[in-house]
Amino acid sequence: MNNNSFGIHSLQIIEFPLHETAGSFLVVYEGNNKVPFNIKRIFVVKSNEKNKRGFHAHKECSQLLVSLNGECLITCDDGKERKEFILNKTNEGILIPPTIWAEQDYSSNSTLLVLTDRMYDENDYIRDYNEFLNFRGNL
Amino acid sequence: MNNNSFGIHSLQIIEFPLHETAGSFLVVYEGNNKVPFNIKRIFVVKSNEKNKRGFHAHKECSQLLVSLNGECLITCDDGKERKEFILNKTNEGILIPPTIWAEQDYSSNSTLLVLTDRMYDENDYIRDYNEFLNFRGNL
Repeated sequence: MNNNSFGIHSLQIIEFPLHETAGSFLVVYEGNNKVPFNIKRIFVVKSNEKNKRGFHAHKECSQLLVSLNGECLITCDDGKERKEFILNKTNEGILIPPTIWAEQDYSSNSTLLVLTDRMYDENDYIRDYNEFLNFRGNL
Repeated sequence: MNNNSFGIHSLQIIEFPLHETAGSFLVVYEGNNKVPFNIKRIFVVKSNEKNKRGFHAHKECSQLLVSLNGECLITCDDGKERKEFILNKTNEGILIPPTIWAEQDYSSNSTLLVLTDRMYDENDYIRDYNEFLNFRGNL
């Protein structure tokens, strides 16, 4: 599959196994073959209040997003169609492939875990929506 | 440094850079040279109520623990001395090297992120404290 194949309908929620014990549960992300790339970068976004982030696409980078607390509405856009996903379970994530525009709408007191297959590179970001449409059109 | 060197006084809290934006902040763990190993496994422990976990050592595996929500009291033991660490900041973690006995005391509504340098291997666990003392004595 090359980047040209990444349309909005190829995106889906990935379910992770949940191991319950008394009073707590454990979810394994990397290390159980559910994440289809080697992880190069891990970060967490904590939002005290409702707010929006994202509003960019990546040229090459793939990202797996998991809501660890609260809720995050993810809007994905392939330049032709938009699709929304609600993340609010620790054992569910969404894999956002490169060339997909994404927006995140965080609830208050939310925590989002992000795993990526590339190191940070500002040149990999497309932060202007018209530039994104041009980029998709030229794929 | 070989495993013989891992005493209780070599353990310390690692501080991660915190990037603040309006209403939220972002902390990068892997991808900023703060984690001294390649990550093989990532898991999250969520505790709805106060509870204790851990009570084991690893023969080879290193683990980095970060509290993403709530508080976690970490007790570490090298067979001679015990030391307690409180994790309650998203931008602080503790690196637990192999051959250290560790116990975690979770507050209610807490979330702990764990990054490890090895895949799960039950043979790497020492779950009996007397066996741990024998293991340390033979290092």
